[in-house]
Amino acid sequence: MSEAVLAISSEDPVLETDFAKEMVRQMRAIDTYGTYDNWPVEKILEPFVLTKEKKREIPVVGDPDEIVMARVRAFYNAISALIEKECGLMAVPMLNLTHEGFGRAVITVGKLVVMDKTLRDVHRFGFPSLSKMKDEGDKLLAVALEIIGLYPKVAGL
Amino acid sequence: MSEAVLAISSEDPVLETDFAKEMVRQMRAIDTYGTYDNWPVEKILEPFVLTKEKKREIPVVGDPDEIVMARVRAFYNAISALIEKECGLMAVPMLNLTHEGFGRAVITVGKLVVMDKTLRDVHRFGFPSLSKMKDEGDKLLAVALEIIGLYPKVAGL
Repeated sequence: MSEAVLAISSEDPVLETDFAKEMVRQMRAIDTYGTYDNWPVEKILEPFVLTKEKKREIPVVGDPDEIVMARVRAFYNAISALIEKECGLMAVPMLNLTHEGFGRAVITVGKLVVMDKTLRDVHRFGFPSLSKMKDEGDKLLAVALEIIGLYPKVAGL
Repeated sequence: MSEAVLAISSEDPVLETDFAKEMVRQMRAIDTYGTYDNWPVEKILEPFVLTKEKKREIPVVGDPDEIVMARVRAFYNAISALIEKECGLMAVPMLNLTHEGFGRAVITVGKLVVMDKTLRDVHRFGFPSLSKMKDEGDKLLAVALEIIGLYPKVAGL
C-alpha cells in the first residue's frame, strides 16, 4: 500500500462533522505511544477507508489482528459516544468476536439494546469512503435514538 | 484435588430440577469428545461447586483457561435456555471476558437486556454448593422474567 495516494482528502468536509471528530478522538484514545500526535486527521482515519483496490489485496478468509479489532472497537465506541451525547444516557458498547472475525456488536442504553449488529469478515473491516462511513454511523445513530425515543423508560433503567 | 470426596451427592434433590438438567445438557453440548457420556450427572456438575477448601487452592490472581470460560458460558447458556423456555422468546447470551477474567455477561431478549452481570476473577468461578448455584440461577431467571413481563413489547422486538 503506498502512502502517497490518501483515500481521504484533507479538505473533505466530512472531517468537520461530529462523527469524524469523535472517530479521531477514539483513535487517539487507543494510541498509547502517541504515534498519531503529529498526524493530520485524514491520516488517522485513513485505515477505515477500504477502496475496492485495497480490499482486493486482503484475502477473503483471514483472522483479524489486534489492530483491526481495535479499529472496529473504535468505530462502535464512537457511535456509543454520539448516542450518549444526544440522549444524555450512558451507552455501553460490547463487542464479541471469535478469533476468526465473526461476532456481534451490541450497544445498550439502560436495559435497552439500541444497536445489534452481526459482524462478519472483520479482517476486512472498512468503508468504501469516508462519507460512506459517516452514513453508516449516522444510520446506526438515528436508529438508536429512535428506539430510545420509543422506550425512554427502558433506556433509563 | 482428590476425586474421592464429591462435593455433590448423587442423591441431591437439586439434581432433579430443571436448572440442573439444563446445566448438564449445556455441559454435554460442549463435550466434543464424549468424555462425559458415562459420567453420572453429579460428576459433570462437580467443577461448578467450589467449596472454601477448593477455592483456597486457586490463586487469587490468575487468568482463566478455556475450560473455566466454557464453564461460565455453560452457566449463562443454561439461564438463557430457561428464560427461553419460560417466555417463549429467544434469549441470546453474550459473554465478554478479557484474558484476565474480567468482563460482562449479558442476556438479551428482543431489544431488552434481561440480565447484565459484571464478572470478576472468572478463574475462580464457582458456587459454594449445588443448591447455591441453583439459587443464583433462579434469581437471575426470576429477575429476567420480571423485566420481560414489564416490557413485553421491547422483548418481542
